[in-house]
Amino acid sequence: MDGFNFSTEIAVRFAETDAQGVAHNAAYLVWYEVARIEYLARFRDGYKGLQAEGYEALTTESHVRYLQPVFFDDRLLVHARCVDVRGARFRYEYILERPRDDDIAEIVADGWTQHAFVDRETLRPTRFPAWLADAVAGAEA
Amino acid sequence: MDGFNFSTEIAVRFAETDAQGVAHNAAYLVWYEVARIEYLARFRDGYKGLQAEGYEALTTESHVRYLQPVFFDDRLLVHARCVDVRGARFRYEYILERPRDDDIAEIVADGWTQHAFVDRETLRPTRFPAWLADAVAGAEA
Amino acid sequence: MDGFNFSTEIAVRFAETDAQGVAHNAAYLVWYEVARIEYLARFRDGYKGLQAEGYEALTTESHVRYLQPVFFDDRLLVHARCVDVRGARFRYEYILERPRDDDIAEIVADGWTQHAFVDRETLRPTRFPAWLADAVAGAEA
Amino acid sequence: MDGFNFSTEIAVRFAETDAQGVAHNAAYLVWYEVARIEYLARFRDGYKGLQAEGYEALTTESHVRYLQPVFFDDRLLVHARCVDVRGARFRYEYILERPRDDDIAEIVADGWTQHAFVDRETLRPTRFPAWLADAVAGAEA
Repeated sequence: MDGFNFSTEIAVRFAETDAQGVAHNAAYLVWYEVARIEYLARFRDGYKGLQAEGYEALTTESHVRYLQPVFFDDRLLVHARCVDVRGARFRYEYILERPRDDDIAEIVADGWTQHAFVDRETLRPTRFPAWLADAVAGAEA
Repeated sequence: MDGFNFSTEIAVRFAETDAQGVAHNAAYLVWYEVARIEYLARFRDGYKGLQAEGYEALTTESHVRYLQPVFFDDRLLVHARCVDVRGARFRYEYILERPRDDDIAEIVADGWTQHAFVDRETLRPTRFPAWLADAVAGAEA
Repeated sequence: MDGFNFSTEIAVRFAETDAQGVAHNAAYLVWYEVARIEYLARFRDGYKGLQAEGYEALTTESHVRYLQPVFFDDRLLVHARCVDVRGARFRYEYILERPRDDDIAEIVADGWTQHAFVDRETLRPTRFPAWLADAVAGAEA
Repeated sequence: MDGFNFSTEIAVRFAETDAQGVAHNAAYLVWYEVARIEYLARFRDGYKGLQAEGYEALTTESHVRYLQPVFFDDRLLVHARCVDVRGARFRYEYILERPRDDDIAEIVADGWTQHAFVDRETLRPTRFPAWLADAVAGAEA
């Protein structure tokens, strides 16, 4: 996907569908989170490593556009990129793609989430770790 | 809450918390949905009645601002209003309030969702039912 | 319900349904938990009070029998009782009833869960608090 | 795992944890379901294929033993086997293993679920498809 260097695959779980026969709107935020965790797993010990260093990342804002219905067992690519790192804050952007046999990318959803790094004990904002900012900048270059 | 004529109460379930010790960001979309269902329950047979008439309401966009952490067993008021009804589309706006003993309203989150009425069989857009538009206009007046 | 002195009402959320058009099997464990929390809320400060005293209750076993399908917006009574308190362990039993207009109790599910009180910091088993054992015995008498 | 010819891997999602810092007890039923879907995916078109043929599999009973706490990002093997196929009914058994570096299998949970094949429209019991019974018998031999 143009502008995205990272993606992870998820399969829509039966438990994530609802009585409309499609994936429930709240499941997308869980998939975004799965993508963030996999995104970070490439750097040192990932999110668990950040927790071990005393950090926690809060979600302060979320946005989803549901463009096409998504069904049980669909295999989706969650493209994700980390942008706008400043101070304690950072932002992720997402495109959810349903790959097709004809190689035309079908975008079924997109969105973004806003986050803040906090101290794990006090929940007070704390700067984005410098080493991680460097790693992210490298990955997004 | 100024500008809102409807609210419903939810209690944060233990299952809705995560290992940060706060309610998970996806739970808010479920609470918004609970509020929409309760909102509509005041008109004829509510959402189930709309389904019986052949309608289904899709969520086409969602937005949440997480302003204060929310904890297990917090009792929250979900203020909701239905706005911008046009054609098949409509929008809900939300304010999530944690009532306090000192009567100062503490707003812990807000947000909005965008929706489209569709035919239940074809999932194609269909006009917002006229009787419901009238009922909503009356309730929001 | 014979043998049960406590019940709480839940409404099946749309998010709890799945593409079979019924409530998902995992949702029942969440409803059982909601019932336990409400059950305990009658004693001192409920589960939050127990946490404040340094306790946490783990679920060590769960069992559900799904007897009748349950649908969106069904209002269900979760009958719950706490039994077999011994040492750190205790057990809850449940009957899920869908009230009917003809006053015949329709049982849609039943089940039980097994639990252990642990120290909140160490997660090691610790005796069921004596005051709570007394309160439970009184409520179940 | 002795007696199991199939397993699939899941990673514990942050959304599946709760404020006790461990995976929530309801998440295990979702993992069991993920394992069933992957189990069936080896035969023809998997569960979606069965739906296309007019079948739906209901869960009629579930049982989980939570033996060890499970944490965010743990990679778990869900061992699953399909047993006791008779008439419309069948049963799955599960062992949840957390692989360790020292190659000692750490079993963190086990359990079973009971199911019934039904006609997708009427929800009435219908015999387990013969071709699938043969495929399952072969896989479990």
